[in-house]
Amino acid sequence: MNDQPTFSGRRTFLQFPDQLSDGQRPDVTVVGIPFDLGTTNRPGCRFGPAGIREASLMLLDGDHPELRVNPGEDLRCIDAGDLDIANGYLEKSVDMIEGQVRGIDGHLVALGGDHTVTLPILRAQAERHGKGVSLLHFDAHVDTWKENFGGPVGHGTPFHYAAQEGLIDPKRSIQIGIRSPVDNDVMDYTTDELGFHVVSAEQVHTGGVEAVVAAVKKTVGDNAVYLTFDIDGIDPSQAPGTGTPEVGGLFTWQALAIMKKLGDLNLVSMDMVEVAPAYDQAQITSLAAATFVWTYLCLLAVKKNK
Amino acid sequence: MNDQPTFSGRRTFLQFPDQLSDGQRPDVTVVGIPFDLGTTNRPGCRFGPAGIREASLMLLDGDHPELRVNPGEDLRCIDAGDLDIANGYLEKSVDMIEGQVRGIDGHLVALGGDHTVTLPILRAQAERHGKGVSLLHFDAHVDTWKENFGGPVGHGTPFHYAAQEGLIDPKRSIQIGIRSPVDNDVMDYTTDELGFHVVSAEQVHTGGVEAVVAAVKKTVGDNAVYLTFDIDGIDPSQAPGTGTPEVGGLFTWQALAIMKKLGDLNLVSMDMVEVAPAYDQAQITSLAAATFVWTYLCLLAVKKNK
Amino acid sequence: MNDQPTFSGRRTFLQFPDQLSDGQRPDVTVVGIPFDLGTTNRPGCRFGPAGIREASLMLLDGDHPELRVNPGEDLRCIDAGDLDIANGYLEKSVDMIEGQVRGIDGHLVALGGDHTVTLPILRAQAERHGKGVSLLHFDAHVDTWKENFGGPVGHGTPFHYAAQEGLIDPKRSIQIGIRSPVDNDVMDYTTDELGFHVVSAEQVHTGGVEAVVAAVKKTVGDNAVYLTFDIDGIDPSQAPGTGTPEVGGLFTWQALAIMKKLGDLNLVSMDMVEVAPAYDQAQITSLAAATFVWTYLCLLAVKKNK
Amino acid sequence: MNDQPTFSGRRTFLQFPDQLSDGQRPDVTVVGIPFDLGTTNRPGCRFGPAGIREASLMLLDGDHPELRVNPGEDLRCIDAGDLDIANGYLEKSVDMIEGQVRGIDGHLVALGGDHTVTLPILRAQAERHGKGVSLLHFDAHVDTWKENFGGPVGHGTPFHYAAQEGLIDPKRSIQIGIRSPVDNDVMDYTTDELGFHVVSAEQVHTGGVEAVVAAVKKTVGDNAVYLTFDIDGIDPSQAPGTGTPEVGGLFTWQALAIMKKLGDLNLVSMDMVEVAPAYDQAQITSLAAATFVWTYLCLLAVKKNK
Amino acid sequence: MNDQPTFSGRRTFLQFPDQLSDGQRPDVTVVGIPFDLGTTNRPGCRFGPAGIREASLMLLDGDHPELRVNPGEDLRCIDAGDLDIANGYLEKSVDMIEGQVRGIDGHLVALGGDHTVTLPILRAQAERHGKGVSLLHFDAHVDTWKENFGGPVGHGTPFHYAAQEGLIDPKRSIQIGIRSPVDNDVMDYTTDELGFHVVSAEQVHTGGVEAVVAAVKKTVGDNAVYLTFDIDGIDPSQAPGTGTPEVGGLFTWQALAIMKKLGDLNLVSMDMVEVAPAYDQAQITSLAAATFVWTYLCLLAVKKNK
Amino acid sequence: MNDQPTFSGRRTFLQFPDQLSDGQRPDVTVVGIPFDLGTTNRPGCRFGPAGIREASLMLLDGDHPELRVNPGEDLRCIDAGDLDIANGYLEKSVDMIEGQVRGIDGHLVALGGDHTVTLPILRAQAERHGKGVSLLHFDAHVDTWKENFGGPVGHGTPFHYAAQEGLIDPKRSIQIGIRSPVDNDVMDYTTDELGFHVVSAEQVHTGGVEAVVAAVKKTVGDNAVYLTFDIDGIDPSQAPGTGTPEVGGLFTWQALAIMKKLGDLNLVSMDMVEVAPAYDQAQITSLAAATFVWTYLCLLAVKKNK
Repeated sequence: MNDQPTFSGRRTFLQFPDQLSDGQRPDVTVVGIPFDLGTTNRPGCRFGPAGIREASLMLLDGDHPELRVNPGEDLRCIDAGDLDIANGYLEKSVDMIEGQVRGIDGHLVALGGDHTVTLPILRAQAERHGKGVSLLHFDAHVDTWKENFGGPVGHGTPFHYAAQEGLIDPKRSIQIGIRSPVDNDVMDYTTDELGFHVVSAEQVHTGGVEAVVAAVKKTVGDNAVYLTFDIDGIDPSQAPGTGTPEVGGLFTWQALAIMKKLGDLNLVSMDMVEVAPAYDQAQITSLAAATFVWTYLCLLAVKKNK
Repeated sequence: MNDQPTFSGRRTFLQFPDQLSDGQRPDVTVVGIPFDLGTTNRPGCRFGPAGIREASLMLLDGDHPELRVNPGEDLRCIDAGDLDIANGYLEKSVDMIEGQVRGIDGHLVALGGDHTVTLPILRAQAERHGKGVSLLHFDAHVDTWKENFGGPVGHGTPFHYAAQEGLIDPKRSIQIGIRSPVDNDVMDYTTDELGFHVVSAEQVHTGGVEAVVAAVKKTVGDNAVYLTFDIDGIDPSQAPGTGTPEVGGLFTWQALAIMKKLGDLNLVSMDMVEVAPAYDQAQITSLAAATFVWTYLCLLAVKKNK
Repeated sequence: MNDQPTFSGRRTFLQFPDQLSDGQRPDVTVVGIPFDLGTTNRPGCRFGPAGIREASLMLLDGDHPELRVNPGEDLRCIDAGDLDIANGYLEKSVDMIEGQVRGIDGHLVALGGDHTVTLPILRAQAERHGKGVSLLHFDAHVDTWKENFGGPVGHGTPFHYAAQEGLIDPKRSIQIGIRSPVDNDVMDYTTDELGFHVVSAEQVHTGGVEAVVAAVKKTVGDNAVYLTFDIDGIDPSQAPGTGTPEVGGLFTWQALAIMKKLGDLNLVSMDMVEVAPAYDQAQITSLAAATFVWTYLCLLAVKKNK
Repeated sequence: MNDQPTFSGRRTFLQFPDQLSDGQRPDVTVVGIPFDLGTTNRPGCRFGPAGIREASLMLLDGDHPELRVNPGEDLRCIDAGDLDIANGYLEKSVDMIEGQVRGIDGHLVALGGDHTVTLPILRAQAERHGKGVSLLHFDAHVDTWKENFGGPVGHGTPFHYAAQEGLIDPKRSIQIGIRSPVDNDVMDYTTDELGFHVVSAEQVHTGGVEAVVAAVKKTVGDNAVYLTFDIDGIDPSQAPGTGTPEVGGLFTWQALAIMKKLGDLNLVSMDMVEVAPAYDQAQITSLAAATFVWTYLCLLAVKKNK
Repeated sequence: MNDQPTFSGRRTFLQFPDQLSDGQRPDVTVVGIPFDLGTTNRPGCRFGPAGIREASLMLLDGDHPELRVNPGEDLRCIDAGDLDIANGYLEKSVDMIEGQVRGIDGHLVALGGDHTVTLPILRAQAERHGKGVSLLHFDAHVDTWKENFGGPVGHGTPFHYAAQEGLIDPKRSIQIGIRSPVDNDVMDYTTDELGFHVVSAEQVHTGGVEAVVAAVKKTVGDNAVYLTFDIDGIDPSQAPGTGTPEVGGLFTWQALAIMKKLGDLNLVSMDMVEVAPAYDQAQITSLAAATFVWTYLCLLAVKKNK
Repeated sequence: MNDQPTFSGRRTFLQFPDQLSDGQRPDVTVVGIPFDLGTTNRPGCRFGPAGIREASLMLLDGDHPELRVNPGEDLRCIDAGDLDIANGYLEKSVDMIEGQVRGIDGHLVALGGDHTVTLPILRAQAERHGKGVSLLHFDAHVDTWKENFGGPVGHGTPFHYAAQEGLIDPKRSIQIGIRSPVDNDVMDYTTDELGFHVVSAEQVHTGGVEAVVAAVKKTVGDNAVYLTFDIDGIDPSQAPGTGTPEVGGLFTWQALAIMKKLGDLNLVSMDMVEVAPAYDQAQITSLAAATFVWTYLCLLAVKKNK
């Protein structure tokens, strides 16, 4: 146990340093992307990185009770701070994010920011991990719209572009928690044309987490997997701090129970998006987001320890 | 997809107009009843209509992902505004509500207001749909008290009077989510004397939604069904914005999963009551209420499209 | 007094209709501009129009206690709803706003939205009222920056462009409530180069409201006056619901006492900007904003009644 | 100083007992009146007594820094609990309140509840103190409406009835903080016909507290004085927890500075009304209300100590 | 049904008197322990007793719907107020609590305060009930740390000391809801060395409540049982008002369904700890805590009625 | 102007680095002291350092509009992070704070934490600046109690000990904003025996800021001055985020207007205490605190630039 309590000290993710003291390459690089210009309803996830980092301090002390690893000890992690954006300028910001992600060393974990940011990350990472990665996608929304309330790009469009650009392979990708109103043609495009495996929130509730784990493993196989976690996949009672909530969502215990069994996947990167602290209560949304990232790091630590 | 985002525009339910441009009879008429004088604990559901309408904008865009209908497109709906009440005067308001409901055209959907309002609605609708309708009732409370903390009428008494006046047929009625403290004699009166089918919240949790759907269908049969949804049937974590919360409640996903399978019932009207926005967090209660109403409209749209 | 209480009814500004029943030209046209892409810190004033309209209902009933007019009765007002914007696209939205404002009939009162929106309004109105109008500007910030955190346009730049384009005459313009940190060269540009009359918040506190009224009258004379009211001119205790608060601000009573004495100015338009309800408490910010707009309408009513 | 901190112990006003241990007549009797059926906008002041009592604990320890008395030590006070009301029934409740107040022993201090409750208190007290008392009235509203949104009685009507019944002498009464919109004829009735001395909030701000003190003394003279304090007389920033806020209000320091100089008046009773904790932030409204009551008790203690 | 609504009256637990009018020994004595110096993250559960008492009023009226008892009627209960503590001094307070608990008559129900307080209660009660009692422990944390961020005692250490002092018999004790990060050696110490039966929150979710009931009965047998309920055992969505939340927690319905089946256990005492109202929303945490205590009292009432 | 907006980047005070890149001695060292065990009412100022740092980002960009300096540019500042404390142990923590402060290089600015922390700072600094410094003290409370609710040390006692130990010279010290209830003998001790110059909040309101500036200068003369700023000196409407609020307080504009004129004093150190973010609204308390610290740094920058 640390000597100093969890409310003390540096507000980086899990108090990671901004660089390793020995100048070596980190295992994991956490970055924040304080960007929310692609948001369609309640804005504010530009404060997501700060909120998640602050809440992560509650997880500072101890090992995962089942995986029995501690990311802060078992991995060499840094928190490299926030990426630059062009305030007020959506498409320019998207390009800036892509450029900066290209320069990042170590396994990337990005703290959003709205879901728009996944597109430039996928573009940047295609260089490193190749095209056609599998998407492991927790969300209330399919995010495959071809437009965003009249504009070409926004937080509802990233996977339309990612699929069209070949960055992801929808047929080996899975979406979990889906439940929002959606145009019939967008849904048909997503499942029939692109071929996403879509698991509704209700299916998780009634089918159980084991079935979801099996579906994930079957869908993605041994392909490289990019985990994108939109906090609105979780029920608004457990994640009120977000911009486009939909009731009837996943519970945090389900997402955690699913995630912890996915350590054998070929995980290449993660993002955690759409956390808007202004709508949060008692930091529970930020804490949920931090716990999902922490659990992801635990999976990496288990793999490293093997 | 609309051109304008969900945070823009008119604050009527789903931005319905106040009348149809062609002057025709609407399929559905939404009204607000800003009344909370029958509340016994935390007041404020006089702001329920405004809260539900505001939250309904988040549902503006798209079809129900399973029922594949869009109420705003597949039905001809209006939002006729708020009914008049007598501020400060409970019984006079009850009479005024009854009178105004008699004059409403189209399938009625009422946004409360506290649960007192269901009584005058049932009285008014008996003319149109006949007496002895089945009540499909989501609630934490049975609302069959014979008095309301010393007074004859209030939000705990509507179904005592409705049963005594023959407006509803308790033996073909079902209450779902019940769990509050209740005098033993009130409970005996409800189940044994009146004959309501009472499903506790715990029974929904442990028995599953399919069993509830079956119980509903068996109880109401092909009788005319009035759906009255007290938001406190839902757990306080998902519906904090209400006056008499009880822990251990239903989850929104359960209510939605039950509702979506009830499209074959002979639905004649719905109300959504007890939403008190002052106690809400990030609009999640209002959004839940709006989603239940939206789902009800989807059921009507499916029926119309047949 | 109305029969129905202030919590009931339509959520337009002061329950104004969306058009006059006789089809005539309104005296005043209220519009909302749900736009906040130019915000640099806390976003959310896209919900400003909804917040101000909701709060305006508290002012429905009665005359101004000193001016003895009631805008809803003494003027023919409409609330024309929200202007369209291009979600996510700042500069395109600015152009769209300008275009729509050109088409508006009646004395314009705009509910923002962030301060970026004043620029397209001024551009559109130059056609009607001529260039070189006087700015009567309540704000914590001078908003004459030449750039906005790396971008050319934002909520800190409108009066740089307005001055450069000749839309306003800074030498006959006055800024009241100024107190934010500001680069020395921006301040010098504002006061020395452009020639704005700047009154700090502290000067209002120590000098009194009569001195401010005199300064306003002397500065603007009989020139056409555009009133732009950034809610952050008011102290954060009275207007927490905003994005870039600065402590030490004006009190609402001061702003009201100043405004009520300016009825003789040649007022041509008003905007009320930067109200972000997500940060508000008990609607006090929205109510303050609504009260400033209501007071402005009272000034117009007094003039009309003369 | 007490041994136990202010967050500990009984939640009565200043932890007064419910009766004196020696069975004697108390100097002061505090009662709560959890009633808000007369409210026209945001309800919830039924929780005012609980809120004010809870906040009063912050004042437990110490003497008034200028008056140098401690009400808990220098007076024999009890907190007799809450009066009964008829839930949902306005006029019956008004009668019940009157009846119960008649039976109260000791100098009455009532914690509301909405402003409706002052009327039955005045009726009950006329027996003890005679008719025609002076009203010392802090408020944003004149509360002399002849009707209440269509009904005869409510929180806007008490002083119309009190004046008509001769319970108060308006010509020796003063209202401080007035600023709400008000029908011209109601204002004329108040000042010209009834003869109230009305001091607007702005007049307090610009004229200073000494002038108000002088006006109070001149107006009420040596008549028996009933102090009725509507918390919305205070600015919404300092008292957000209320139902009908009006911006531009009094500051707490002004009300306290005025009150502390009124110890020589012939004070016969006090009420503190319209505190609605659901809209409060960090208990500041309840604390303000508790501090006003505490200051009033200090005045009584000074008088007793003489 | 009571005549007066639930928002009225005394703020003791369920409005219990502070002593029985006939001077007899109570069946149950409720005390508050406003102490939070052992808290490691967010403080504030010193206000837990006040919060739980206030919320308990919502449960005033009626019988448990299944157990069909009403604690206020079927048991002779008192609320003896708050224990004294030494403000700022942790270890001295622990000793003071122990001393005061020794003097309490009747079945003890303690309202915390942080989890540190269970240690002195157990010490005091060992006299009455003997050592080696079974712990029935709802919590997110095992609370068997050997130190508390550098200090010897705190809210993470009570069961380390209780086990070492023989106050509890870990091998006949069970912990339910466990899920926090924890050092591997602390977990090994808890389960392997001390022998606690640990049931994770996920196990409750996937295994169901019946299995937990069986495990409890098997573990504790007929040993004397001390129920200690840390509100953070419940999910943060249902209990945000606490200091060290962990996502993925128990739902209230599960805890209630488990508790109601444990009436045959040899229950000797209960505490309800870690409720921090400053982080609560709409009192849902306090209400949950009050409902757990109420349910416990119902179990005692059933036993008494036998 | 910076390229990146104020919501981006490192959460240190004004984004100061943790050490100077050239290894040189800083002009100013900011430290946090996350300690609140001395709090008597609402705890939580352990999160004060985090809250003030987060809010300081709103002040990142620009010069003081009158002093025309920018602390981030004109001074060489570091934020050295948080001091260690002994969680749960008040007196040990006090000693640890003293020890760590002794080791700090540069002009100290401490972010509390409760007011207890000023005592160990004064003890540590006596070595550097000598005993008998002048206290410039903004507060609602005199903080010269000889005990703290039964304990010897707490946030109400620092200046009793500081005076007794000769660390401060009360006769050349001034307290501004005082207004809490206080035992008569504590007040007499403070003013008559110790000789503090006490300026009540009301005296600031009625006497004006110039008179206070004059009183400060006269009282402290050219003695070394330690500025201790308890945020509860400010009115609860502008600083709700604190533990022991008192209504009728100073306004932020007054404190800022006073501070900016004190640049000629011999300032040796500053602390900013009692900020409890859990009770804050929209960060206004933290922003006020950050602005006071920023203004203090501006004074130092002016002095350096001379």
